[in-house]
Amino acid sequence: MICAIEDILRKAGALMLSYGNPEVYQKEGRANFVTEADVAVQTCLMEQLAARYPGARFFAEEKDENVLTDDLTFIIDPIDGTLNYLRGRACSMISVGAVQGKQAVFGAIYDPYRDLLFHAETGCGAWCGSDRLHVSDVPCESAVISLGTAHYVEGTLEKTARSVAGVLGTFGDLRRLGAATRDLTDIAIGQSEGSFEWMLNPWDYCAGSLIVTEAGGRCGNIMGGDITYAHAIPFMAATPRVYDTLQRVLQDAASDAQP
Amino acid sequence: MICAIEDILRKAGALMLSYGNPEVYQKEGRANFVTEADVAVQTCLMEQLAARYPGARFFAEEKDENVLTDDLTFIIDPIDGTLNYLRGRACSMISVGAVQGKQAVFGAIYDPYRDLLFHAETGCGAWCGSDRLHVSDVPCESAVISLGTAHYVEGTLEKTARSVAGVLGTFGDLRRLGAATRDLTDIAIGQSEGSFEWMLNPWDYCAGSLIVTEAGGRCGNIMGGDITYAHAIPFMAATPRVYDTLQRVLQDAASDAQP
Repeated sequence: MICAIEDILRKAGALMLSYGNPEVYQKEGRANFVTEADVAVQTCLMEQLAARYPGARFFAEEKDENVLTDDLTFIIDPIDGTLNYLRGRACSMISVGAVQGKQAVFGAIYDPYRDLLFHAETGCGAWCGSDRLHVSDVPCESAVISLGTAHYVEGTLEKTARSVAGVLGTFGDLRRLGAATRDLTDIAIGQSEGSFEWMLNPWDYCAGSLIVTEAGGRCGNIMGGDITYAHAIPFMAATPRVYDTLQRVLQDAASDAQP
Repeated sequence: MICAIEDILRKAGALMLSYGNPEVYQKEGRANFVTEADVAVQTCLMEQLAARYPGARFFAEEKDENVLTDDLTFIIDPIDGTLNYLRGRACSMISVGAVQGKQAVFGAIYDPYRDLLFHAETGCGAWCGSDRLHVSDVPCESAVISLGTAHYVEGTLEKTARSVAGVLGTFGDLRRLGAATRDLTDIAIGQSEGSFEWMLNPWDYCAGSLIVTEAGGRCGNIMGGDITYAHAIPFMAATPRVYDTLQRVLQDAASDAQP
């Protein structure tokens, strides 16, 4: 699948970088944006994917109604890290996952700034270009954990703050780059050991979670159980050496945050 | 001063990038490292600066005793963001500030990954190469605030967690890249509006604070008053539009963190 999708992603990446000063529309909640570039990149991806995979369905960030069926479905974030994109921070990625029978079968993430293409197919490993990816074996006390902040979703702010205390008290250090896809590919390439966000949408983690899993990592719902691609969940990903400890720290943070 | 120091910084940057897998020594506290590269880059900087500025003193991260006098003193962080450096995260900078009569007179920060040289002289503006820098006029509700986590310094962990809650409740978003010099130059180039760390050393902020100030921003002690270059302080920097609100949020966080 990557051969067909690589060209599509590179074309979308060029379109994304072509906007000098895109028009911005506010979304629900504070600091939640969509730009004309998000819409244009999504349209570009959907048109090309529909031509290559007739009958495929789409589940995408800038689309009004998203329902997951058992059909082949592309789960798309046209620009993950829109605020970074708007502010010229050069940390935003294009994410395309494919789900069939509600299971992830393929994922690709393209970083047009670094010209890096991450991809995975179920059972075939995770790759960056032609390099096979493997998660790290760094122990908890040195581990780097990335944080997402869905602070525009009610009820997540205090859990996020308690999670910061827990992570800083247990692991090596904390990062917050502002793009879930970047956090996940950092784990897959062995530059960090975990990431979490108290409410994350499927288009943010669909492709990235398959890339992490195929690189030897684990992904799940913070509160327990597997991920679903049908709706937003409290999402976490980590290396096998760090996963259980990170999950316990985050669950404790959720308990501490109860009023 | 920048003409003389530009060559010195570029030479140090090339040395920094030449280490494939540097040997690591643990410093006091968890997740606090020094590598053979930090030591080599610092030696390279000090030797060249001493040759060019005979009689100058040095105040540097990987040096045992640091006392600030009224003489011309170079305040140096050979690799700011050592953990990023170690993990291949491509976000570490070389920082050289110059202080005379205990006042900052010059600051330069070199990012060898992006080949960007930021510099400022008191009263002469801040620059990236030949581009004059200006801080943004973004309002609080959209502002991006960067966080440093001196979690290996006792008593800062809970203040940091409370600060995260305060910042997420007041400003647009939070970033944590893991290099104070990067956070400060991001403010100077208008890609973010504020940064803070509950205990930050002069080598981390000496050059960067002058660059922010000369770009039109403000720097100070979170708890009030001006910065000093003689010892670590609770440090903050922000654009004029954001500074007072960020200071109030952080002071409130410190009160909330009291046991």
